[in-house]
Amino acid sequence: MPKGFASDNNSGVHPAILKSFEQVNKGHVVGYGDDMYTEKAIAKLKQEFGEETAVFFVFNGTGANIISLSSVASSYHSILCAETAHIQEDECGAPEKFTGCKLLPIEPVNGKITVEGVEKHLYGFDFEHHSQPKVVSISQVTEMGTVYQPQEIKAIANLAHKHNMHLHMDGARIANAAVALDLPFKAFTKDCEVDILSFGGTKNGMMMGEAVLFFNPELAVNSKYIRKQSMQLFSKMRFVGAQFLAYFENNLWKENAAHANRMAKILEAETRKIPQIKLTQEVEANGIFAIIPKEIIKPLQEKYFFYVWNEELSEVRWMTSFDTTEDDIYGFVKSIKELLN
Amino acid sequence: MPKGFASDNNSGVHPAILKSFEQVNKGHVVGYGDDMYTEKAIAKLKQEFGEETAVFFVFNGTGANIISLSSVASSYHSILCAETAHIQEDECGAPEKFTGCKLLPIEPVNGKITVEGVEKHLYGFDFEHHSQPKVVSISQVTEMGTVYQPQEIKAIANLAHKHNMHLHMDGARIANAAVALDLPFKAFTKDCEVDILSFGGTKNGMMMGEAVLFFNPELAVNSKYIRKQSMQLFSKMRFVGAQFLAYFENNLWKENAAHANRMAKILEAETRKIPQIKLTQEVEANGIFAIIPKEIIKPLQEKYFFYVWNEELSEVRWMTSFDTTEDDIYGFVKSIKELLN
Amino acid sequence: MPKGFASDNNSGVHPAILKSFEQVNKGHVVGYGDDMYTEKAIAKLKQEFGEETAVFFVFNGTGANIISLSSVASSYHSILCAETAHIQEDECGAPEKFTGCKLLPIEPVNGKITVEGVEKHLYGFDFEHHSQPKVVSISQVTEMGTVYQPQEIKAIANLAHKHNMHLHMDGARIANAAVALDLPFKAFTKDCEVDILSFGGTKNGMMMGEAVLFFNPELAVNSKYIRKQSMQLFSKMRFVGAQFLAYFENNLWKENAAHANRMAKILEAETRKIPQIKLTQEVEANGIFAIIPKEIIKPLQEKYFFYVWNEELSEVRWMTSFDTTEDDIYGFVKSIKELLN
Amino acid sequence: MPKGFASDNNSGVHPAILKSFEQVNKGHVVGYGDDMYTEKAIAKLKQEFGEETAVFFVFNGTGANIISLSSVASSYHSILCAETAHIQEDECGAPEKFTGCKLLPIEPVNGKITVEGVEKHLYGFDFEHHSQPKVVSISQVTEMGTVYQPQEIKAIANLAHKHNMHLHMDGARIANAAVALDLPFKAFTKDCEVDILSFGGTKNGMMMGEAVLFFNPELAVNSKYIRKQSMQLFSKMRFVGAQFLAYFENNLWKENAAHANRMAKILEAETRKIPQIKLTQEVEANGIFAIIPKEIIKPLQEKYFFYVWNEELSEVRWMTSFDTTEDDIYGFVKSIKELLN
Repeated sequence: MPKGFASDNNSGVHPAILKSFEQVNKGHVVGYGDDMYTEKAIAKLKQEFGEETAVFFVFNGTGANIISLSSVASSYHSILCAETAHIQEDECGAPEKFTGCKLLPIEPVNGKITVEGVEKHLYGFDFEHHSQPKVVSISQVTEMGTVYQPQEIKAIANLAHKHNMHLHMDGARIANAAVALDLPFKAFTKDCEVDILSFGGTKNGMMMGEAVLFFNPELAVNSKYIRKQSMQLFSKMRFVGAQFLAYFENNLWKENAAHANRMAKILEAETRKIPQIKLTQEVEANGIFAIIPKEIIKPLQEKYFFYVWNEELSEVRWMTSFDTTEDDIYGFVKSIKELLN
Repeated sequence: MPKGFASDNNSGVHPAILKSFEQVNKGHVVGYGDDMYTEKAIAKLKQEFGEETAVFFVFNGTGANIISLSSVASSYHSILCAETAHIQEDECGAPEKFTGCKLLPIEPVNGKITVEGVEKHLYGFDFEHHSQPKVVSISQVTEMGTVYQPQEIKAIANLAHKHNMHLHMDGARIANAAVALDLPFKAFTKDCEVDILSFGGTKNGMMMGEAVLFFNPELAVNSKYIRKQSMQLFSKMRFVGAQFLAYFENNLWKENAAHANRMAKILEAETRKIPQIKLTQEVEANGIFAIIPKEIIKPLQEKYFFYVWNEELSEVRWMTSFDTTEDDIYGFVKSIKELLN
Repeated sequence: MPKGFASDNNSGVHPAILKSFEQVNKGHVVGYGDDMYTEKAIAKLKQEFGEETAVFFVFNGTGANIISLSSVASSYHSILCAETAHIQEDECGAPEKFTGCKLLPIEPVNGKITVEGVEKHLYGFDFEHHSQPKVVSISQVTEMGTVYQPQEIKAIANLAHKHNMHLHMDGARIANAAVALDLPFKAFTKDCEVDILSFGGTKNGMMMGEAVLFFNPELAVNSKYIRKQSMQLFSKMRFVGAQFLAYFENNLWKENAAHANRMAKILEAETRKIPQIKLTQEVEANGIFAIIPKEIIKPLQEKYFFYVWNEELSEVRWMTSFDTTEDDIYGFVKSIKELLN
Repeated sequence: MPKGFASDNNSGVHPAILKSFEQVNKGHVVGYGDDMYTEKAIAKLKQEFGEETAVFFVFNGTGANIISLSSVASSYHSILCAETAHIQEDECGAPEKFTGCKLLPIEPVNGKITVEGVEKHLYGFDFEHHSQPKVVSISQVTEMGTVYQPQEIKAIANLAHKHNMHLHMDGARIANAAVALDLPFKAFTKDCEVDILSFGGTKNGMMMGEAVLFFNPELAVNSKYIRKQSMQLFSKMRFVGAQFLAYFENNLWKENAAHANRMAKILEAETRKIPQIKLTQEVEANGIFAIIPKEIIKPLQEKYFFYVWNEELSEVRWMTSFDTTEDDIYGFVKSIKELLN
């Protein structure tokens, strides 16, 4: 069965990542992060984001988000996010369970929350009957495949900070965003006043392991306890450190993400030529949302695995990844065309 | 300062309730509910709602709601309610904190959730990434002063049950609803397939103490532990039992609620005569929502305490209660008129 | 059935407390504590404990303890207490559920924890695998009827503070302790460096309502949210304020507690005369623990309700209360003697 | 620096495990466990433990324990374990945070809890003030390096089941136990009436990934939601499946554990010859506990990393692992001897 378009985490692991395991698999090192590979990986991230950045490696994206949020929110706080946010839709309630907070979903525009959307929830401060707004969380790339522009992020950050709130970014696909914006990571995170970043790599060629970055280390004074208590502290941490080192070496992250984004652009171009297909979101990174004739969904899925996004609308989601090939794309498009005839 | 219109819980306690304390304040009885006054009060509620009803007295409305929800929902479940629901807006996140569940707010129509509003959230069953929908919670009277008709309740209950979900009713003002509908409690709760009821009395002349009723006692097998663990088990429980006995004697509940509703009708009638005032919700129980000229809000509040509901719209909320008098109403209306001239 | 010796909360309510309800049951006041009766009651407590004290009224003792602990402990902390502590034994896990903390039970000596007992758990600081010790909680009077001397409290406080920890006192029976020590409340709480006090009244003649006192108000900056979220915020708060005012008027608290303690002394004196009875704890307040012949327990319980403390040892607990009479005591002792013959 | 004796998770990864990654790193597969490698690994575990076993792969040992406990315990339950248990001492309160339960530590005998130790906590059933005992958790190998005999496990299981409780085994070092007992896994788990098993591999040559096994699948009906909500669901799950397949191929698990245990035996034999060293626990698996002269600890640690277990007693812990060599042992012993002279 050929590679599908279900998700960038259905892909395998980049060979350079696998190779990094061998390189660090020597002798004993102290567990739980007190090893030189982890230290080097942290140093690398500090180099990208600033020396004062506090870095915590975790297992997965949900873990990264929870540790981000738990570090700054108490149970009587609320967390504002898009209706489509991963923390709202795809984490089985982990944020509520672990933080005790209320999540307030905001209707997104092009997959993004807006200043106006946030403002609607900014009331009831100091009123003890009301969950106190404390964090705004945005996803970059969004779950709809769109990308926040730096000024959009900054505007939300300013609003949040004006109300003594924090801005969290779920960067599960941050590499795809960096490529889409053609900016270094720092330019659209820390420099836009983002406070906490879930920095993801799994969807872009790593095996597992994400990083939580606090640009103000004072927010992270208790995060090491929170990470351990939330079951996200890896004993053989060197194998996450190794992956991050490989990920940054020769800009592997960029190469992978640029490739995935380019594949999406080709798929976009090809499908725009097909009159029966209507794209529903801007294609800015590696995700494509399209309304396609209902009758071809099932047969197409038998050849290429992907998800229906909205049953009612006959809307599907196609994700490209670092290992998607042009042949995969053209084969896929050919199958679509065959099914349509 | 005259009585205000801020909330029905700004009122005092009905004299018959106070008197009930003296009647039971004799000698020692076993604590925590194992006394004859509590037993009699439970028997009275069973008489109203059916013998198999499981009854748990608690301190307050938030406690009643939490014990209701905790008894049937695990942390990976979601709870659907109106955007305006007390559990969503006014409990400082107690539902999330205590149940760990995700709350999914539904945009209400006339203060009420609709079958369509609920249906939008009924997806992702059996998909472990998605909080599993488990409870629909409605408020009767709603927080907007409107009242669900029995057939509306039944329709939501049917939908819930079709998906193996439960229907909870927050009945903080259930007496006002019973009077508005001119129906016995059972007719628009149990008979409409409601599963769990927070039965309130505090807003209608009691001092404190609410009851959680499970119409199917199997839902309540662990509720006694949940009540204790959620800090809602009263040691001198006889003083809640006593209140409930007094509340049902000579239909005190009905007299009080009928009075409050009637006061609201008078206030409605009087304010409808004032062209500068626009009522924004149907007046079906004891709450009135009105848009009034912004400039009179402050001076009016100095004479009669009440809350601004929506600053932007200049919308205010006026609640009447069991002890509101016609004089209170006419004095209030007179003040409004004076301020408008 | 005569009054039993099961618990001081099996008693009724002192008539002066009941009367206080009538005195405040006039007109409307703002709910949730923003009324003059609550304000006066807070002022009274500040007068007793110092102006800077932060005061929060709650429903019950478990609620008071949870709000105390939640205000200063995060989920990665541990709380040290006696094996016999109410928070360890009698709250159905409310502390763990609400704070997320680990409770570390310490074997008590005469019902009291010791500096040595605490010290055994003071390790693992800064080590993220280990729940961080953060609070020591002692009960005054202890659950075994004994009373901490001021120097004992101070020693534990010093130890706690040396490790950046807080000392909480569960004062469910604090009035009985004050009488036993013949000291003002402040002398063995704030003056002994206690940080947070659950100040109880229910077991000494009040109906319900306890106070949480923070002697350093900085510890309480979030407590109002915690109280609401933990379902402990009373809407008609004036009726707790009223009780506290009555409780302090003419030293009602002292009269009640002195009486209860005196009754315990009489019961102690009488039972010490009975050779088949062996008291197992010092009688310092209003509780008596005694090993009595197994065969008389059941028949004695049929006349006077009380609890078996330790089935195996045939140890029972007898509590006196503000409304226990000398006749109750002598009748009880007479029954014991009859059963023994 | 030579290999130390700090922990078996300071070791690297067995080459066969690393190789397994390459074998499965082909093309796309569905994420989150719905792939053929994970399926095969589950099939392998079912073959070992019985077809009806429900298997859930997770990231790490703490995660395995939490999902085990959460699946069967509600927040009003208590969990009984050794004072030295990993869940009590080394998980930063994750069990309390995630389950809300009370943990009741039992003083161990030779690192093991006993029937008598458990029995002391079996009271208060049905009494709502008391956390209801629901789970007994034992560690096999224990944290003190000792191994439960099958009849010991069965006796605890019988006691637990008699009280409607479940027996959980933390098998972080279960392979070392199997070798020590010379029994198949099933013989001292399922066959001894263990209900839930945290099956560990990380400490025995795997990189990460543990399995939770429910021998009665009815206990696991909600575990998939619990795993996701507790942030333990791995997107690229095939890489855990692959490890487990390699782990069972040619009995790699056995070879690794047998080696580690044999290294411990050599270290035991050598250190027993040194009069200044006193072993404090039976050496039954791969851990050695020893009291050694205080003055050699620091200098010895500079050469070989290990942990002090009990500062006061000058007791240290030495762990051997699958990659410890005889040279490592003899070098270590030589260093000890040199430091002692």
